[in-house]
Amino acid sequence: MSTKSKGSNAERELIHMFWSKGFAAIRSAGSGSMKYPSPDLLVAKNNKILAIECKITKNTSKYFEKREIEELAHFSKIFNSISYIAIKFKANEWFFLEINQLIEKEKSFMIDIKTAKQKAKTFEELLNVFIKE
Amino acid sequence: MSTKSKGSNAERELIHMFWSKGFAAIRSAGSGSMKYPSPDLLVAKNNKILAIECKITKNTSKYFEKREIEELAHFSKIFNSISYIAIKFKANEWFFLEINQLIEKEKSFMIDIKTAKQKAKTFEELLNVFIKE
Repeated sequence: MSTKSKGSNAERELIHMFWSKGFAAIRSAGSGSMKYPSPDLLVAKNNKILAIECKITKNTSKYFEKREIEELAHFSKIFNSISYIAIKFKANEWFFLEINQLIEKEKSFMIDIKTAKQKAKTFEELLNVFIKE
Repeated sequence: MSTKSKGSNAERELIHMFWSKGFAAIRSAGSGSMKYPSPDLLVAKNNKILAIECKITKNTSKYFEKREIEELAHFSKIFNSISYIAIKFKANEWFFLEINQLIEKEKSFMIDIKTAKQKAKTFEELLNVFIKE
């Protein structure tokens, strides 16, 4: 299976998870030839919107181009959404991180599985944010 | 050019128009094999969100399956968005209609160009909604 197909399947998995919990969720068609920011998923319920970049990896860490993260933040500023990175390391559950929880390097942002386990929200913990407030 | 390509080009045209006016806008990847509602476009600025079904036609009227419109309304109820139909009749500009401006038939909703010209917002008029409030 191609990397692109695996990515799409990961996005679909999250779409199912969010709808099953009463959220409305859509996958972006991607920016394609267009130059505009386009988060992988938009998810909303109770007047809160999440803009999510969605990643899966077989490695124990994942790097992001600064541009990708900056575009996510730019999109959310206009759309009034909360930016999240959803990442699934092999054989682990989904982790949800806010941008400021990523580790900033000179030319990239990164997250490793150890840091994710310490700082990230699980799916259930992410849902609690929407229930409590 | 296929109907699907024309539809995608129409969506891209609207994406450009909205970004050029300071909105954040994305195209949906479509529900595909998934059974969830998925409006063609999501557009937002100033805490207002539009969920838009986007159509072009060479005819002077356009019919919508009731299910399509009901799914749009269902999505917007959860996402807290305002549902709009964006329709472009050949050689005309874009018209923006709310669901209750469509004409309800026994098994469908429809809009004709005459009614659209009377009731619909133009793009500039749609923008005014966001400026005024």
